[in-house]
Amino acid sequence: MNTRRLQARFYKIRSNKVFEFFVVSIIIFSALMIGVKTYQLPDYVNQTMRILDFGITLFFLIEISVRFLGEKKKSQFFKSGWNIFDTLIVVLSLVPIENSELAIVGRLIRVFRVLRMVSMIPELRLLLNSLLKALPQLAYVMLLMFIIFYIYAAIGSSVFAGINEVLWGNISISMLTLFRVMTFEDWTDVMYETMAVYPLSWIYYLTFIFLTTFAFLNMIIGIVVNVLEEERQNLRQETKNAQAKKEVSMEDLQLQIQELKHLLEKR
Amino acid sequence: MNTRRLQARFYKIRSNKVFEFFVVSIIIFSALMIGVKTYQLPDYVNQTMRILDFGITLFFLIEISVRFLGEKKKSQFFKSGWNIFDTLIVVLSLVPIENSELAIVGRLIRVFRVLRMVSMIPELRLLLNSLLKALPQLAYVMLLMFIIFYIYAAIGSSVFAGINEVLWGNISISMLTLFRVMTFEDWTDVMYETMAVYPLSWIYYLTFIFLTTFAFLNMIIGIVVNVLEEERQNLRQETKNAQAKKEVSMEDLQLQIQELKHLLEKR
Amino acid sequence: MNTRRLQARFYKIRSNKVFEFFVVSIIIFSALMIGVKTYQLPDYVNQTMRILDFGITLFFLIEISVRFLGEKKKSQFFKSGWNIFDTLIVVLSLVPIENSELAIVGRLIRVFRVLRMVSMIPELRLLLNSLLKALPQLAYVMLLMFIIFYIYAAIGSSVFAGINEVLWGNISISMLTLFRVMTFEDWTDVMYETMAVYPLSWIYYLTFIFLTTFAFLNMIIGIVVNVLEEERQNLRQETKNAQAKKEVSMEDLQLQIQELKHLLEKR
Amino acid sequence: MNTRRLQARFYKIRSNKVFEFFVVSIIIFSALMIGVKTYQLPDYVNQTMRILDFGITLFFLIEISVRFLGEKKKSQFFKSGWNIFDTLIVVLSLVPIENSELAIVGRLIRVFRVLRMVSMIPELRLLLNSLLKALPQLAYVMLLMFIIFYIYAAIGSSVFAGINEVLWGNISISMLTLFRVMTFEDWTDVMYETMAVYPLSWIYYLTFIFLTTFAFLNMIIGIVVNVLEEERQNLRQETKNAQAKKEVSMEDLQLQIQELKHLLEKR
Repeated sequence: MNTRRLQARFYKIRSNKVFEFFVVSIIIFSALMIGVKTYQLPDYVNQTMRILDFGITLFFLIEISVRFLGEKKKSQFFKSGWNIFDTLIVVLSLVPIENSELAIVGRLIRVFRVLRMVSMIPELRLLLNSLLKALPQLAYVMLLMFIIFYIYAAIGSSVFAGINEVLWGNISISMLTLFRVMTFEDWTDVMYETMAVYPLSWIYYLTFIFLTTFAFLNMIIGIVVNVLEEERQNLRQETKNAQAKKEVSMEDLQLQIQELKHLLEKR
Repeated sequence: MNTRRLQARFYKIRSNKVFEFFVVSIIIFSALMIGVKTYQLPDYVNQTMRILDFGITLFFLIEISVRFLGEKKKSQFFKSGWNIFDTLIVVLSLVPIENSELAIVGRLIRVFRVLRMVSMIPELRLLLNSLLKALPQLAYVMLLMFIIFYIYAAIGSSVFAGINEVLWGNISISMLTLFRVMTFEDWTDVMYETMAVYPLSWIYYLTFIFLTTFAFLNMIIGIVVNVLEEERQNLRQETKNAQAKKEVSMEDLQLQIQELKHLLEKR
Repeated sequence: MNTRRLQARFYKIRSNKVFEFFVVSIIIFSALMIGVKTYQLPDYVNQTMRILDFGITLFFLIEISVRFLGEKKKSQFFKSGWNIFDTLIVVLSLVPIENSELAIVGRLIRVFRVLRMVSMIPELRLLLNSLLKALPQLAYVMLLMFIIFYIYAAIGSSVFAGINEVLWGNISISMLTLFRVMTFEDWTDVMYETMAVYPLSWIYYLTFIFLTTFAFLNMIIGIVVNVLEEERQNLRQETKNAQAKKEVSMEDLQLQIQELKHLLEKR
Repeated sequence: MNTRRLQARFYKIRSNKVFEFFVVSIIIFSALMIGVKTYQLPDYVNQTMRILDFGITLFFLIEISVRFLGEKKKSQFFKSGWNIFDTLIVVLSLVPIENSELAIVGRLIRVFRVLRMVSMIPELRLLLNSLLKALPQLAYVMLLMFIIFYIYAAIGSSVFAGINEVLWGNISISMLTLFRVMTFEDWTDVMYETMAVYPLSWIYYLTFIFLTTFAFLNMIIGIVVNVLEEERQNLRQETKNAQAKKEVSMEDLQLQIQELKHLLEKR
């Protein structure tokens, strides 16, 4: 009985607008601290920061506990990816890291606290979800693009490895070089170098650029069309329903007229 | 009574097509003068320019006064953002700036006179309004992108600061560097430098490029879909109205047929 | 009478598929010749080329004459922009240019012969027309972009002229520099240079990039939406017509039922 | 009789899911081997690779044979472009190439085996088909763009050849340079060089960039609109069919009412 009352109280805290606003403020403050730490700072500020950081970690720990205790079914809590993510970030922040080698790891974990902002603001969560939902649609275009990259990289590292070991040394480096070519970043320097040995190698670059640009365009168009298609499907369904309703009333009319005819003929 | 007649007269001037055309001409002339001033000019031209500039400032002052006096309700005048902007530009141009330190400020104020063109041509005003109206839709995507930038910049300045102080010195510089990477401007130079120390740092750049490109694409597609969605909503409403009308006439028909039946059955 | 028969004969030639194909072949051949001439060639080839060029000019003259004489109403001929363009190119090719200074002009005129391809192939003509038709829609966005460029260029040449005369010397050079920034071409070099003097000048570049990218995006979206809008208007018109037709038959029905009622009531 | 039973058995193998999965696995393994080969490897690994490669070639030969023998009508087999492609790749892999000069050719053929992935996975085949189907729509835009490139390249190599032989030496090199300008790759370097001689040559570059960007945009928009147009055509057809059906039932109604009238009038 006591537990349930406690749960209800925590649930109330957790749903409180002021509490939520306070949590977001702390997240923003913790994000600012991460930014400030990248500047050269006097020693006493660093000391203060360490204390503040400890305070924030503590606050997040309490907040997560409130959330967890406020949950009606405890097992439900870890079914949400965001809850797992939040817990992980908080727990990992608790690990003390004095060692200088792990200091960077500790810093990075604190950086990911900023992502908690996404988990707190529903609009951002929605946006991220819709972004993630669009990804699988692209899976096959991605695969096709990877195949194009792989083939061109295999050709590139077979033929151009002798010209420039740094750019075409093996298939992974070649793929990175090709990605660079795709972003048009100093791609002519890469091309002119190989054209000095193989004058026709511009064909290699131009076909690659055409293929990837075309596939990329198709991907974008694909997303747009998909979104519109979905929309249209809804519209069509609505129209069909309206149609069906109208047809019913039409049949109704015909039935009634037939009845009329029968009435007239009977007499 | 006298004031009202004056107001009416000024209103007439203000709505006059010739007057409007004249104002736009003066704005264009003032814009040209700003351009000419950036060239090296002989002294006597500079002198003439100063006089012309004074003339333009005076003209704008008169024009704004005419507009203000032509307004029926004076309090209404400053409710339009464009009027406030126009008045501000004119008033600030009046401040005499002989001091060489403030000369640049004076010049910049004159530059913004060109923006008065937007306030004068209705089509441009409409365009700018529609641009500004599209901005809030993007607010959350912008926020998400800022979070992505912030996290990557925090990681970048934590890990790469030792490699290149100029590019990764603190979080602000890192964000600028990341913006550069997003525009593909010599981004491989930035990457190769850090790859020399951390060979796997290409993951950092590639994931960043993928995330921002993907978010950017989604933003564009979002706008397009929003615009179309609005359009479609209108279409749907029209269809619904037409449907409703049709259903009414259908019901009418059925009622009439029922009456017929009653007539027949009665006899 | 004789003239008319001649006109009819020329009209027949002009509409002949074989003749058209032959003209296109000559245009392609002339285009290839222009390309070949840019290579280093032995003297006798150059001589042959000069003769061939003369032959082509002659052929084009005859072709235009046939077209002109085949026209029923001579005054109609010069109402088509393409005919004027074709005639101009042919007539200008006739001017003998031995003078080395004008040789380049002569060459350029020959280059524009390639454009005759567009005037010959209906699909290309259609495409170009649709491209040109889309331009006026963009007029105001272009104007707005020009204003943005002008204001930023005026600011740039006022503030940065002392830093780099080559990039910010006057307003025209500044606009070219800004166009370069818009294409992201080594824009960070430009920025880092001014940031050394004005550390906050990144605001200038970033706002400029945001404004132009946003205006550019809006332009594209504007075109897409315009095209779709037109399409939709057609669809709506069709639907309305169908609706009107249906309403008429509905009214018809009601009238007939009313007649029925009258018939029944009369008896 | 025996042949047919054999064919049926092979057909069964070929349609077997396990078999298909196995083939895809071998293709992926062969792709990985191609990638591994681009690294510096110890001798014994290279030896193993050669044996494995022989095994893969053999496997592909068997697989193609099974496919061929499983086909009901042998003549049908080579009507599919994918089958021809698969057979070609396998047959060419069989040619022994010890000669170091042809070794690269042999490698490249093995690289194209990766493309067999596309022929095996239906989704990728569909995607590639839809990409290829979109190409002819672009044929005329491509032609128009080629004409623009050709004209600008002809002008460029006529006027700028003296300035930089490497960039503007002849029409082919000029076209490559213009493609570079189109991708904004260090295009200002190219421009500044010619502007030193012809200060107005920026017009050449800017008009080129505007034309190609505009044509490119139009191309993209063209594809989007085409896809949507097709969709809409379907929708319209559906609507028309529904309309026609409704009109029929409407006519039916009117006929029945007329019959009623006749019945009433007769009496």
